[in-house]
Amino acid sequence: MLKLGVVGCGYWGPNVVRNFAIQPDCHVVAICDKNPKVVSQVSSRFPSVNVTSDENNVMRSTEIDAMAIVTPVSTHYALAKRALENGKHVFVEKPFTATTAQAEELIELADRKNLQIMVDHTFLFTGAVRKIKELVDGGALGPLYYYDSTRVNLGLFQHDVNVIWDLAPHDLSILDHLIGAEPELVVAAGGAHLNGMEDMAYLTLYFPHGIIAHINVNWLSPVKVRLTMVGGQRKMLVWNDLEPAEKIKVYDKGADVMTKQAAYERRVSYRSGDMWAPRVEETEALQLEARYFLDCVASGEKPFNDGRAGLRVVRILEAADKSLRRRSEIALPASRRPEVAPMPSGSVQLAV
Amino acid sequence: MLKLGVVGCGYWGPNVVRNFAIQPDCHVVAICDKNPKVVSQVSSRFPSVNVTSDENNVMRSTEIDAMAIVTPVSTHYALAKRALENGKHVFVEKPFTATTAQAEELIELADRKNLQIMVDHTFLFTGAVRKIKELVDGGALGPLYYYDSTRVNLGLFQHDVNVIWDLAPHDLSILDHLIGAEPELVVAAGGAHLNGMEDMAYLTLYFPHGIIAHINVNWLSPVKVRLTMVGGQRKMLVWNDLEPAEKIKVYDKGADVMTKQAAYERRVSYRSGDMWAPRVEETEALQLEARYFLDCVASGEKPFNDGRAGLRVVRILEAADKSLRRRSEIALPASRRPEVAPMPSGSVQLAV
Amino acid sequence: MLKLGVVGCGYWGPNVVRNFAIQPDCHVVAICDKNPKVVSQVSSRFPSVNVTSDENNVMRSTEIDAMAIVTPVSTHYALAKRALENGKHVFVEKPFTATTAQAEELIELADRKNLQIMVDHTFLFTGAVRKIKELVDGGALGPLYYYDSTRVNLGLFQHDVNVIWDLAPHDLSILDHLIGAEPELVVAAGGAHLNGMEDMAYLTLYFPHGIIAHINVNWLSPVKVRLTMVGGQRKMLVWNDLEPAEKIKVYDKGADVMTKQAAYERRVSYRSGDMWAPRVEETEALQLEARYFLDCVASGEKPFNDGRAGLRVVRILEAADKSLRRRSEIALPASRRPEVAPMPSGSVQLAV
Amino acid sequence: MLKLGVVGCGYWGPNVVRNFAIQPDCHVVAICDKNPKVVSQVSSRFPSVNVTSDENNVMRSTEIDAMAIVTPVSTHYALAKRALENGKHVFVEKPFTATTAQAEELIELADRKNLQIMVDHTFLFTGAVRKIKELVDGGALGPLYYYDSTRVNLGLFQHDVNVIWDLAPHDLSILDHLIGAEPELVVAAGGAHLNGMEDMAYLTLYFPHGIIAHINVNWLSPVKVRLTMVGGQRKMLVWNDLEPAEKIKVYDKGADVMTKQAAYERRVSYRSGDMWAPRVEETEALQLEARYFLDCVASGEKPFNDGRAGLRVVRILEAADKSLRRRSEIALPASRRPEVAPMPSGSVQLAV
Repeated sequence: MLKLGVVGCGYWGPNVVRNFAIQPDCHVVAICDKNPKVVSQVSSRFPSVNVTSDENNVMRSTEIDAMAIVTPVSTHYALAKRALENGKHVFVEKPFTATTAQAEELIELADRKNLQIMVDHTFLFTGAVRKIKELVDGGALGPLYYYDSTRVNLGLFQHDVNVIWDLAPHDLSILDHLIGAEPELVVAAGGAHLNGMEDMAYLTLYFPHGIIAHINVNWLSPVKVRLTMVGGQRKMLVWNDLEPAEKIKVYDKGADVMTKQAAYERRVSYRSGDMWAPRVEETEALQLEARYFLDCVASGEKPFNDGRAGLRVVRILEAADKSLRRRSEIALPASRRPEVAPMPSGSVQLAV
Repeated sequence: MLKLGVVGCGYWGPNVVRNFAIQPDCHVVAICDKNPKVVSQVSSRFPSVNVTSDENNVMRSTEIDAMAIVTPVSTHYALAKRALENGKHVFVEKPFTATTAQAEELIELADRKNLQIMVDHTFLFTGAVRKIKELVDGGALGPLYYYDSTRVNLGLFQHDVNVIWDLAPHDLSILDHLIGAEPELVVAAGGAHLNGMEDMAYLTLYFPHGIIAHINVNWLSPVKVRLTMVGGQRKMLVWNDLEPAEKIKVYDKGADVMTKQAAYERRVSYRSGDMWAPRVEETEALQLEARYFLDCVASGEKPFNDGRAGLRVVRILEAADKSLRRRSEIALPASRRPEVAPMPSGSVQLAV
Repeated sequence: MLKLGVVGCGYWGPNVVRNFAIQPDCHVVAICDKNPKVVSQVSSRFPSVNVTSDENNVMRSTEIDAMAIVTPVSTHYALAKRALENGKHVFVEKPFTATTAQAEELIELADRKNLQIMVDHTFLFTGAVRKIKELVDGGALGPLYYYDSTRVNLGLFQHDVNVIWDLAPHDLSILDHLIGAEPELVVAAGGAHLNGMEDMAYLTLYFPHGIIAHINVNWLSPVKVRLTMVGGQRKMLVWNDLEPAEKIKVYDKGADVMTKQAAYERRVSYRSGDMWAPRVEETEALQLEARYFLDCVASGEKPFNDGRAGLRVVRILEAADKSLRRRSEIALPASRRPEVAPMPSGSVQLAV
Repeated sequence: MLKLGVVGCGYWGPNVVRNFAIQPDCHVVAICDKNPKVVSQVSSRFPSVNVTSDENNVMRSTEIDAMAIVTPVSTHYALAKRALENGKHVFVEKPFTATTAQAEELIELADRKNLQIMVDHTFLFTGAVRKIKELVDGGALGPLYYYDSTRVNLGLFQHDVNVIWDLAPHDLSILDHLIGAEPELVVAAGGAHLNGMEDMAYLTLYFPHGIIAHINVNWLSPVKVRLTMVGGQRKMLVWNDLEPAEKIKVYDKGADVMTKQAAYERRVSYRSGDMWAPRVEETEALQLEARYFLDCVASGEKPFNDGRAGLRVVRILEAADKSLRRRSEIALPASRRPEVAPMPSGSVQLAV
């Protein structure tokens, strides 16, 4: 039975609490939030949990095995460091930290104390991304050519980070998971129309083997779009995350199958070949991720979304900021990857 | 009565012939194509027109007042030069020329001989772009913040140019028309997966006053997308050119209207404010453009899509190529614009 | 402070509990469900409420002012009768009762004891239906011509009623609300492919003044559709309830505006005139309805979704069954309507 | 070489001319239209064809082997009769005739003179309907449960028939083709809001083996909808004819596959199973149909869309009118079917 403390219970925190609470081998024992209004709301929603506005109660508690850190990114480093120093495993929101230096220090600290860090790259646990991973790994798409993502909406509220740090970590963690390699070059372009921070930006990442990734993030879009295309030599897929029933569509035709005659017909034809929309598992992603965290803590195996995965995302975010400032491309060094634990399957046994 | 000769009658040529032929003050007298198969097809389709495979017949004909050049871009310069030297006005496909030097020479030649050049930026004459122009010019959107266009499809047939030269001129001519200024910086990124030419690319253009434009062009997309967003301080619009009935949607909310309370509600809300889809005129764009060409030839006024407009597009295309090769941003010099003729209204009197 | 008891806490019950519980002048004091598993789940979810599997505890409690009956339709009559006899107001799921005779008896009983009955026609409190009601009442659409609704999905689980009783009450209550009159004729057609009960059916209702309503309900549809068109002399609207952002679209053109020229153009045109998608209020419908129930109990005014409104819906459902069996149209007698209380506005003050 | 005459060249006629003209073994020799404006337009479009406003020129010509009748339905009988009496095969627009008696007389006459009648049920030759036919005949859907079609748009111009005669023949001919049996019962409901003829109507057809068909036709719809669902025991399909790229979607789940557990999950799930959108052949339907007409005339085999197929559709239309007038169901007698010729494949050799 793992005993969990949670710091931060605003927008996302209640989801974290709920999904850990339903696991049979986890007990959420304490929640901390600085906002007294949040404390009172959370108390009535989770009456059996100790809710407090004093973070010391939680951090110092010897009863607590792991901390979930669900606060703004600027606070991740200090909170995670303190949790690790107090011998607690850490589950932390994305992006992992505000700088690569912070991430590296936390990874080193966790390794030294033999503790786990899991970065909440929730999208990796969605049915859609798991299906895409399965199609890519199984070779259905053939060698990858590109990943092109549009992730835009109206998001005009106060932010402590620019739109890249807010929205791009989703795609960056998915790319890291799908491609299993780091980009060699990062180019970012963007505009800051309102308060000095970029509210719209375009990231282009050059990966090994000619794979190109492009991420369009924008807080000034009148409509919400979550559309990703993944093109391979054999097949291509479109992932529309706002589509309730057919999130993923796989198209029969790829880039190497075009004869001259087919090419001519394409001028008047919308597409050739069949399309196939595989069933996508609907288990809540955060529930699977909580299960995975508990499994990794129990087994001691590293999760694939560990501190190093978090660091790889922060490294690209930092490079993107640098590219924006310098208006030029930024080269990244290669890195190496250790073994990670397998993801739990979609249907897990829960406590009710 | 203007007498028109047409060079090139493959994919787009028949549309040019048909739309000039229905104008009451125009007579299509000769069509030239090097492909004998095309010559025979065109002859049976337009039995009253002189169809030939010998370009000299057309170029030297003293009967002909103007030439429509509907051939690959690599041939535009030589054909247009010859037509101008023979005293003929020129209607030429986009992109205008293969280099800025060619465009400048042709403009100079036409000015010297007091002849018109019109570059076939057809999209400027569509109901959709005319409605967007009206909304932008009328101030409905407020000062512009961005233009973001996705123009992708499967387009794997033989090309003599890369995907930027093939697809981006549409957006570049629209931007030129809407903004009335040139970009200061051009950044291009792209990938070449098949035959060495870029088959997917991303252009970012920085215009004066913080306006940012982004163009996503791709020949390796499994689905056809023609989606453009234009964001302003007061309102934002979405133009989906594949939508038959509601091509343009205008959203009430812009970027400066967000209170804290509204911002909070936005988290769970898709949008606030009404949406409005104005009726878009359905007159065929090329028909209006043919009308405009005839009017400009008659009046001697410069069209807004004259050689200089064509040059401005070619200048960006050249800069994009340079940016791709150098992997860095390219600065453009500012240019100045002369007066142009007003566009004809949507309902014109045609000969039948 | 109204004290509420709830009978039935399976699929919909928790929503009823939650929405009454957040009202400042309501206290949910007891929940009853026959299923012990439900009792244990609900206990942990609502720890401050007395949860029991013995209905007598609730029905006889003198502490309780009103009962919410959230059970299958076959049990509504007996439960509501018992609640009224024990002096409690009644909030009951749709459809109100299994027969018109039952409905009439309950109405009479409530009137005699001066108690309220509200039938949970939730859709009347959605932003979409409230907006449609506003447009119809304000004359924006002109005199109504038709209401055409498609409400289909896969729904192959065990039912104690046919598809008409399951899905049509939504449209029937909306029609009752919008038109303010009863149909004169009911025609139903349907098929029973699986277990003897109709799993697909078509209802046509003829209202006074030539208004025709058609309802397509189907449990064997591979896709979920919730699409309603409302046509009037001046304008027409389309309500797509599965559309997250633009549920209601109002089209400028109606049925009387067609000139000959416009008619000819319509052949090649998708539509003329603008389209307008008004902002639709997103407050949870059941929250507004709970508010309305409390207001009506406090004021003694009849709600518009009272027992009589419930009866009017049951009367059509009974006629539809009769029409299915006889394969012929069924005439309905006219009825008269008393005064009802105004609906609360979208933004109500809640207890938190 | 078949020599074809065409009567009527308004909206649809030019398509008939064009598609017969490109067949290598057909020569369009004469076109007749009463409207002098049409005569002049058609003359310039088809300069090699004899165009006239005097029908006698065509009917009496001994040079002509077959007549295409592309006029309003009220004139079909007289024109077809005259053509047959003059020894000409007949290709006639849908619906075949204005009454079943007329259809029967024409069939008898053609049989006696050993001439062919083909009724232009164009939809049967579309890639979509051919794919659906293939899926139904191959057993992919299992035994059919229902066919549900919505075919609505603004269609407010002058009509000589009601909306059922205008729009329902498409679905009636498709049903005849797919099911290969006649309905036993016809129920129609409808409304006439403008000029006394039904401008909206609902047809329900009861076929043998419990198959139910429903057709929703409406001239007062603000939006154009062409949506058909076909449900079977094993699979279900959705045909959206306005979708350019994915007209047909086949859903894995049918009506007999539901376990209790799956049923419970369905409440929160949009669908289970994969979806598959087969490639749909894009050859123009009328081109294939012209090919089929020429083949049948050459071989003497009856086409499946012969006069008897036309009669079966007219019989249902007549029954629908009767049902509307009587407001009751109409029973139809069973009929028997002779052998028909196979449809040509999608790729045919054409003359150019």
